[in-house]
Amino acid sequence: MKARVTVMPKQGVLDPQGKAIAHALANLGYDAVHDVRAGKVIELDLTETDPDKAKAQAEDMARKLLANTVIESFRVEVSPA
Amino acid sequence: MKARVTVMPKQGVLDPQGKAIAHALANLGYDAVHDVRAGKVIELDLTETDPDKAKAQAEDMARKLLANTVIESFRVEVSPA
Repeated sequence: MKARVTVMPKQGVLDPQGKAIAHALANLGYDAVHDVRAGKVIELDLTETDPDKAKAQAEDMARKLLANTVIESFRVEVSPA
Repeated sequence: MKARVTVMPKQGVLDPQGKAIAHALANLGYDAVHDVRAGKVIELDLTETDPDKAKAQAEDMARKLLANTVIESFRVEVSPA
């Protein structure tokens, strides 16, 4: 199975990367941008074939390594490889 | 409209970040991981209300700033704010 882990800063947590991108976009003349949030996406190619088990594995990996759960939240989507 | 830009390394391009994550997961004992690819996700809160125009704007921003189109590919998904 393929598991896609999307990690974003939690609401209310300062997002310097998002701010920097917003600033750069404004400098390029894009003035229709209200807000920008930047995060990570990690695509895992897992040998597990059961979707529920694959999702549980990816969530465990996210909690232990991929996301800093103090300041980040994550979402896991699984799909056939 | 909200536009989500997902930027991933192109197939065949070296992905050191993905390799580092795969290595770290193996060290944590996760041996069911075949491959790992790491990218960015940028959520843009646009003042544009027309979905097609919002998508075109986000694609333009991706080409000009958010993605290095030589080594990265991007995908844009729009949704109501």
